Amino acid sequence: KSRYSNDLYKVANMPGVAVGLAWTYVGGDILFVETSLSEGKGELKLTGNLGNVMKESAATGFTYLQSNARKYDIDPEAFNKKTIHVHVPEGAVPKDGPSAGVTMMTAMASAFTGKRVKPYLAMTGEITLRGQVLPVGGIKEKILAARRAGLKEVILCWQNEKDVQEIDSAFIKGLKFNYVKTMQQVLELALV
Amino acid sequence: KSRYSNDLYKVANMPGVAVGLAWTYVGGDILFVETSLSEGKGELKLTGNLGNVMKESAATGFTYLQSNARKYDIDPEAFNKKTIHVHVPEGAVPKDGPSAGVTMMTAMASAFTGKRVKPYLAMTGEITLRGQVLPVGGIKEKILAARRAGLKEVILCWQNEKDVQEIDSAFIKGLKFNYVKTMQQVLELALV
Amino acid sequence: KSRYSNDLYKVANMPGVAVGLAWTYVGGDILFVETSLSEGKGELKLTGNLGNVMKESAATGFTYLQSNARKYDIDPEAFNKKTIHVHVPEGAVPKDGPSAGVTMMTAMASAFTGKRVKPYLAMTGEITLRGQVLPVGGIKEKILAARRAGLKEVILCWQNEKDVQEIDSAFIKGLKFNYVKTMQQVLELALV
Amino acid sequence: KSRYSNDLYKVANMPGVAVGLAWTYVGGDILFVETSLSEGKGELKLTGNLGNVMKESAATGFTYLQSNARKYDIDPEAFNKKTIHVHVPEGAVPKDGPSAGVTMMTAMASAFTGKRVKPYLAMTGEITLRGQVLPVGGIKEKILAARRAGLKEVILCWQNEKDVQEIDSAFIKGLKFNYVKTMQQVLELALV
Amino acid sequence: KSRYSNDLYKVANMPGVAVGLAWTYVGGDILFVETSLSEGKGELKLTGNLGNVMKESAATGFTYLQSNARKYDIDPEAFNKKTIHVHVPEGAVPKDGPSAGVTMMTAMASAFTGKRVKPYLAMTGEITLRGQVLPVGGIKEKILAARRAGLKEVILCWQNEKDVQEIDSAFIKGLKFNYVKTMQQVLELALV
Amino acid sequence: KSRYSNDLYKVANMPGVAVGLAWTYVGGDILFVETSLSEGKGELKLTGNLGNVMKESAATGFTYLQSNARKYDIDPEAFNKKTIHVHVPEGAVPKDGPSAGVTMMTAMASAFTGKRVKPYLAMTGEITLRGQVLPVGGIKEKILAARRAGLKEVILCWQNEKDVQEIDSAFIKGLKFNYVKTMQQVLELALV
Ligand SMILES: [Ca+2]
Ligand SMILES: [Ca+2]
Ligand SMILES: [Ca+2]
Ligand SMILES: [Ca+2]
Ligand SMILES: [Ca+2]
Ligand SMILES: [Ca+2]
Ligand SMILES: [Ca+2]
Ligand SMILES: [Ca+2]
Ligand SMILES: [Ca+2]
Ligand SMILES: [Ca+2]
Ligand SMILES: [Ca+2]
Ligand SMILES: [Ca+2]
Repeated sequence: KSRYSNDLYKVANMPGVAVGLAWTYVGGDILFVETSLSEGKGELKLTGNLGNVMKESAATGFTYLQSNARKYDIDPEAFNKKTIHVHVPEGAVPKDGPSAGVTMMTAMASAFTGKRVKPYLAMTGEITLRGQVLPVGGIKEKILAARRAGLKEVILCWQNEKDVQEIDSAFIKGLKFNYVKTMQQVLELALV
Repeated sequence: KSRYSNDLYKVANMPGVAVGLAWTYVGGDILFVETSLSEGKGELKLTGNLGNVMKESAATGFTYLQSNARKYDIDPEAFNKKTIHVHVPEGAVPKDGPSAGVTMMTAMASAFTGKRVKPYLAMTGEITLRGQVLPVGGIKEKILAARRAGLKEVILCWQNEKDVQEIDSAFIKGLKFNYVKTMQQVLELALV
Repeated sequence: KSRYSNDLYKVANMPGVAVGLAWTYVGGDILFVETSLSEGKGELKLTGNLGNVMKESAATGFTYLQSNARKYDIDPEAFNKKTIHVHVPEGAVPKDGPSAGVTMMTAMASAFTGKRVKPYLAMTGEITLRGQVLPVGGIKEKILAARRAGLKEVILCWQNEKDVQEIDSAFIKGLKFNYVKTMQQVLELALV
Repeated sequence: KSRYSNDLYKVANMPGVAVGLAWTYVGGDILFVETSLSEGKGELKLTGNLGNVMKESAATGFTYLQSNARKYDIDPEAFNKKTIHVHVPEGAVPKDGPSAGVTMMTAMASAFTGKRVKPYLAMTGEITLRGQVLPVGGIKEKILAARRAGLKEVILCWQNEKDVQEIDSAFIKGLKFNYVKTMQQVLELALV
Repeated sequence: KSRYSNDLYKVANMPGVAVGLAWTYVGGDILFVETSLSEGKGELKLTGNLGNVMKESAATGFTYLQSNARKYDIDPEAFNKKTIHVHVPEGAVPKDGPSAGVTMMTAMASAFTGKRVKPYLAMTGEITLRGQVLPVGGIKEKILAARRAGLKEVILCWQNEKDVQEIDSAFIKGLKFNYVKTMQQVLELALV
Repeated sequence: KSRYSNDLYKVANMPGVAVGLAWTYVGGDILFVETSLSEGKGELKLTGNLGNVMKESAATGFTYLQSNARKYDIDPEAFNKKTIHVHVPEGAVPKDGPSAGVTMMTAMASAFTGKRVKPYLAMTGEITLRGQVLPVGGIKEKILAARRAGLKEVILCWQNEKDVQEIDSAFIKGLKFNYVKTMQQVLELALV
């Protein structure tokens, strides 16, 4: 069902792109978050048919990175002199909810640092302004979608571990799970 | 039901975060207000699916702090040179009403002063521009939620004292109550 | 029914605050208008769940004071270098209509001049840009609310005198009435 | 029915105020247009519960005066350095339509030139950007309202003359009618 | 039915005004487009109760003229230093659709060049950004309205020629038709 | 049914114009995307009755070109000093969806580079921020429309090849198909 072929995200891997997991009415799906920096004034541009909750989630990640720029070796001036555009294909599909928070934050961190995101890694989780990762729903469907898409590793909130344990282990063989409490842990795992 | 584990707000306590009490259709709940300062021009950024009354409540607290900056040892220049972002997780849940006024005002004061909010303290109350605290509804449900979450102390408007007295005392054993008339009293109790 | 205790507006009286009379679906009520000046660029910030007519009424009072700054000993530069925030508690209650015009204009004049509003004084009336006071409705209910709240003096449009004369005199004993034609008369009576 | 007493517009006559004629669901009425200049950047501020057509009509008059500033002895710099606020009491009554165009344009011209509008004069008519006056409806009701209010002179579009001729002459005895084609004629008649 | 007398557009002809043809629910009608230049920053101001499609049509004409300024002897600086106001009387009538594109573009070109539009000339047609003229509907009704109003010449898209040929020739005797493919042809025919 | 005659897009071919394929409720159609550069501040102006998804698609293409300016020999300063206007006739027809992404991106690239788009070439496909081309729907109807309109070559996403293979080969004789994975491939094929 995914319109992305397996080799596309292998080959096209570049700074600013991260893979998330979404829960749609037809089941779980993978979702790319693409970001691009250009000259600007610290603006955050959002496209891809995003709802308000998802836009606020991006804004939260943006402020978190700005407040913690030095910790992550991001030039603080970037938040004054660059525009960051966050796009989530596929543009015809409305998307909403807070669960892409970690993915959008990671994609932005990748763009700002120039470090790529680890290949074959997906993630899902709400983020808070002080750097916590909150659990989200639809874990089973999301994990199965990750496996169908050939992904190898997943980052989740530690409070979602119980949801993974309820999945038949045959279905998730070969998938590595990382449970985190904070956005700092996400970025340490994701940026390579 | 709360997605925050007890130790999370113990450990992750940092300037700019305060705990409020909310009254939802499933009963009382605790609610975190997170704030973050970054370079800016005195803008107030609000996220977390907040309704208009709640946004106006944040704006009221913001102006109050600006007008009383010297009294609280806040650098008046912060209101020209910083952006303050107020976020209330969980982003998927719509939130509204004036009762988070004291909590948002306290979290902002904590961010601006760099002083932490006393741990295990929660609060609820409407605020006015000249610094008064007004009573709010749902006190019983909010107090029970505070206790379930392991909180130890609560700040309320003095006109809500009668609502607390109607709660069976067995349910609130060990909880300390502070009744206030003004925002100055709130900040004296909350900032440590 | 009022959430403000009698002594609150006695004690907390400060420049920038005025008491109005409102006519709600549960009868008359008193209403506080709070204002606060801070550094800015002549912006008028309005909160308290105000409807469009009430917001325009505030804007009209703001322009009137700007145009007549010298007459009232207001520094004209304040309209370029300050932001004035007008807040009307209680934030959960939607408010609208032009009848708080005189109260909002008086509260702003009090903030700009630094002069307090006379205690135990309430007022109601529409204002126009050239400084006239127009009559408003619900006079009986408003007057009774003023008396219940312990107020001692009221300012009304001279065209509302007939409405006061229709109230049983036993109900308004001890209340002093001031009938005015212009905003200048309002400010002479209200600012002390 | 009018809330303005006869002597009010006699006495309070000042530059920036003009009297129009409105056609409401309860019949004709007179309507004051008040304007006020203050320091600014050429902004046009509109209050009084005006609909979009009426707002556009004000904008059209504003541009006409800006384009023809020299012809009317208006300082062209006023359109860069002043804000003009146009207010139409009574704020609770929604108003719309193009027929207050001549009145708003005249009130603005009066404010910009400092010349008063002739007393006891009313007017009604749509205006166009190149300076024409167009006919409007409800002439009979408007004329009768003008007479009830004690006005003595009326400006109308020449294409409305036929509507006046249909009114029983006994009803309009003593009223002087001026029929015009252009805004220039309006201003020559109105500004004294 | 038209509120404009025949001599009005003879006499009041001035740079910046063009006559279009509209198709309304009561049949065809003529429509004036008025434009006015004033000091500004290249802004396009639109009034006259225009719908979104008609506003976009004006924006398209505006960009076309800016891109082709030199070809039409327009000072390119005008697009930075002037505001152009486009008004379409009668303000009470909602107007929409792309068919006034040629008329609005011509009126703007007339204002920018200072050249008048040929008298007794009307036009109708959609415009595109690269300068093409597209056919529009309601040709028969529009042509009959042009004749009733005493107009003598019409500009249409060449693809509308077949619609004119379907009209009984007795009805269009004396009317001259110009069929065009491009906006350049329109301006060559219209500006004198 | 198309309002564009065959020779129009042959003759009027100029930098900034590209031909897309649209899928409407009456079947497939061709669609022109016109762009025009003028002095400005890096703004993207969109007209032609475009829906939000289509506007976001244009914004995505705009950022892609800005981020990859040097690769395509575009002066990076253009994104600060020019305004690009993208117009899609016919203005009365609402348009939406992501499938015009490649066409809008190509038209913009043509305007920015000054290179024309290859004549008789059409294209359809969603674009992503990192430069991928995604498959879209309605391929059969779009291809048939391209042929009816006399086009000779089409660019599609490689994942749409299977849709072309399902079309009876008699219907597509003489049409050349280019299947691509990236926007770079699109621009190499389209700009001449
Ligand atoms: Ca998908
Ligand atoms: Ca995700
Ligand atoms: Ca919760
Ligand atoms: Ca609270
Ligand atoms: Ca009350
Ligand atoms: Ca009042
Ligand atoms: Ca009246
Ligand atoms: Ca009028
Ligand atoms: Ca007409
Ligand atoms: Ca037309
Ligand atoms: Ca078509
Ligand atoms: Ca396309």
